[in-house]
Amino acid sequence: MNSETTICALATPGTGAIAVIRMSGPDSIPLIEKVFHPATKGKKLSGQQPNTIHFGTIQDGNNVIDEVLISLFRAPHSYTGEDSIEISCHGSPYIQQKILEVLVAKGAVPARAGEFTQRAFLNGKMDLSQAEAVADLIAAESEGAHQVALQQLRGGFSHKLKSLRGQLLHFISMIELELDFSEEDVEFADRTKLVSLVNEIASLIGELISSFQLGNVLKSGVPVAIIGRPNVGKSTLLNAILNEERAIVSEIEGTTRDSIEDTINLEGITFRFIDTAGIRETADTIENLGIRKTYQKIGQSSIVLLLTEASDDPGIIRKSIEAIREQLSQDKHLVVVLNKSDRISEGQIKELENGISLLENERVISISAETRENIHGLTTLLLDIVNIGSIKHQDVVISNIRHYNALKSAAESLTRVSEGLSSALPSDLLAQDIREALHYLGEITGEVTTDEILGNIFKNFCIGK
Amino acid sequence: MNSETTICALATPGTGAIAVIRMSGPDSIPLIEKVFHPATKGKKLSGQQPNTIHFGTIQDGNNVIDEVLISLFRAPHSYTGEDSIEISCHGSPYIQQKILEVLVAKGAVPARAGEFTQRAFLNGKMDLSQAEAVADLIAAESEGAHQVALQQLRGGFSHKLKSLRGQLLHFISMIELELDFSEEDVEFADRTKLVSLVNEIASLIGELISSFQLGNVLKSGVPVAIIGRPNVGKSTLLNAILNEERAIVSEIEGTTRDSIEDTINLEGITFRFIDTAGIRETADTIENLGIRKTYQKIGQSSIVLLLTEASDDPGIIRKSIEAIREQLSQDKHLVVVLNKSDRISEGQIKELENGISLLENERVISISAETRENIHGLTTLLLDIVNIGSIKHQDVVISNIRHYNALKSAAESLTRVSEGLSSALPSDLLAQDIREALHYLGEITGEVTTDEILGNIFKNFCIGK
Repeated sequence: MNSETTICALATPGTGAIAVIRMSGPDSIPLIEKVFHPATKGKKLSGQQPNTIHFGTIQDGNNVIDEVLISLFRAPHSYTGEDSIEISCHGSPYIQQKILEVLVAKGAVPARAGEFTQRAFLNGKMDLSQAEAVADLIAAESEGAHQVALQQLRGGFSHKLKSLRGQLLHFISMIELELDFSEEDVEFADRTKLVSLVNEIASLIGELISSFQLGNVLKSGVPVAIIGRPNVGKSTLLNAILNEERAIVSEIEGTTRDSIEDTINLEGITFRFIDTAGIRETADTIENLGIRKTYQKIGQSSIVLLLTEASDDPGIIRKSIEAIREQLSQDKHLVVVLNKSDRISEGQIKELENGISLLENERVISISAETRENIHGLTTLLLDIVNIGSIKHQDVVISNIRHYNALKSAAESLTRVSEGLSSALPSDLLAQDIREALHYLGEITGEVTTDEILGNIFKNFCIGK
Repeated sequence: MNSETTICALATPGTGAIAVIRMSGPDSIPLIEKVFHPATKGKKLSGQQPNTIHFGTIQDGNNVIDEVLISLFRAPHSYTGEDSIEISCHGSPYIQQKILEVLVAKGAVPARAGEFTQRAFLNGKMDLSQAEAVADLIAAESEGAHQVALQQLRGGFSHKLKSLRGQLLHFISMIELELDFSEEDVEFADRTKLVSLVNEIASLIGELISSFQLGNVLKSGVPVAIIGRPNVGKSTLLNAILNEERAIVSEIEGTTRDSIEDTINLEGITFRFIDTAGIRETADTIENLGIRKTYQKIGQSSIVLLLTEASDDPGIIRKSIEAIREQLSQDKHLVVVLNKSDRISEGQIKELENGISLLENERVISISAETRENIHGLTTLLLDIVNIGSIKHQDVVISNIRHYNALKSAAESLTRVSEGLSSALPSDLLAQDIREALHYLGEITGEVTTDEILGNIFKNFCIGK
């Protein structure tokens, strides 16, 4: 299903040494020939081998716009599966703009966000979950997010899911055949095999569903709120944590990163400090939990660091903990941080720590933000909470809420199929549940799709991808 | 003169659909082979044709970093003249960083700013003025700046200069031969031909020197100061001018530009409004020319727009003009702008305009910034002042202060050569002047160079170019 239009867009951002402009569609090659003048006279691009690079100029009439390299790709062996070219030009915004203008003047259409990848999907170069992984891969800022996206791009769970869905599809056609012969009471579909296939699919889906929490942590990072009364050292603690991280990050000059100011990457996982602008400026008091801001922070976080002073009255600390607990939902973690531990003795600290009775999902730790004492202990604790150990052993992880929802729906349908099989449900009802499961599974990889689903997915892409 | 090291750098900025990493040097191909795993098993990069593209993964050990395209170039047919590769990867900062890290781990060296272009120069792929044009081309924001840079990149004046310098070099060797035979009083160098060559070079140099003012305008834009008493409408005027321009600019989505907020592009020329933050905020009074800020603005500008109200007392307007004149050096232009022309009759405006006696380089124009009356007339006037007409007929324009200075020095030496020739100066003194001219001409194209000159030029490049 090739598109009729030929699209073009800038694929690199801003001003740099070089910029890349992409064009894809049936007219890519005749269209570039209208404006490209090869350095070797008479060398026509249309006569060249695919996957080759050609030097020359892009001209608007007699006006040279730039000296460029053209990379030539031919259907189906290109990113989109269509004839495509990439123009590598000097990275000035003026040149980028002029080249796009001349391509559009010759008949190319400016690409919509994600349109190249959408075409790749429509032309069968990748399934829908792989297409979604492209955007995740570009956005990945940490090792964890990168691995989840790359695994998904490379087919991770979707190949297996697709193959199982194919087998299920075979069964449904057998069962539908039975329906045609319903008066003869035959069974084309081997029920035993069907039970084992349904179990296999349900088991894979179960694994994938349970990997979502982890996948989401890896992809989006772990939101952490630091709360505490004014002057207890929230800002100093944040700086200490960030500095701890900075020391172990090394960057090669020339690579840019978006601001990492208020996030840290620990062993591939991003921890995001919520509303740290607030931390630096406002005085949110835990005594006064009625304050909306503190509520909000707790609501948005997975981990709450309740910062107190080790020399505070133990009764007040306990009261603070109780006040916070009331606000915490079951899935959140609370870490009671006893700051300024350098001001009291080790014995006193031990006593204090032991005096705090913790519930499940609660920890206590003593540090000194000022002297950086035990900051490493705190970051280790953060990692421990998200259970880094489980990541290393997980092969396949989903991180996409759309997949999660489809998998949950598929799981429900499959449960009904299982029940139907064990209760010898009539074939037509069984077929209906199987078809429902097939629908949800197909949504993930894109065998079943709608313009709305595609629109939602690709609108979040950048232009040029 | 090939380098021994293999350098690598990111050639595209920030986060985008794709990023390009460059590597150049003798080990480019063996080095990429250590980390690149072609999608087609067993297809070794080292066995591939130059100017071809290859799909596969970059791996750090068994860890896949990304799926990439590798473009393969072989010496001397590459940008640098060395074996080179370009890696086209997904544009996430994480991936960019990881790929650079793995290349460096295998022995590549992070490139310095401009090092790829410096190598291209050192390997004879371009002369020095062409190398300098690469940076200008990337920085070009207007059609004029773009054309000047492109013309220089494509060899513009430097080819001709180099050929004339070569002829002069021939004469100096003849004259030096004469010195060897000085006792025999022979003349190997044909003096008539030498005179005509010196005249030809001097004439080209003269043209180039006189093109500098224009070239500089095209490259750097025309600085314009808007001055006037508080509330006379400076900010409204600036907005009116900027809006006039915005209406005729169309941009294709997806191209980014640096802020053009306080510059306008008119027929390929950039006009820069000086210190417009100041215009918007401060109240610089022309009555009080002692104010430093106004002095500074006038000093930095080529054109001063003195904004007054058409309904102001004519005597006060005249006094303002006189006060400004005292501050204006000869090369600056003054435009007296009578604002709020809609508040008085046409007859009154004519009378007012005629009542202002203008010197050379001075103009008067009536506008209404608020109703946008005659804003187009004002922008046409700005274009008229920089004399757009002369640009269209100029073939070769220099825009680089380094070239300008070298050309001026060369011109002085050549004047002495001419004088020496007409006064039959002894050959050894003549030779000295010619050698000096050769030196300055050689500095432009890089036949004569020093590490200091190269260092100064390339340190202003971006990394990856």
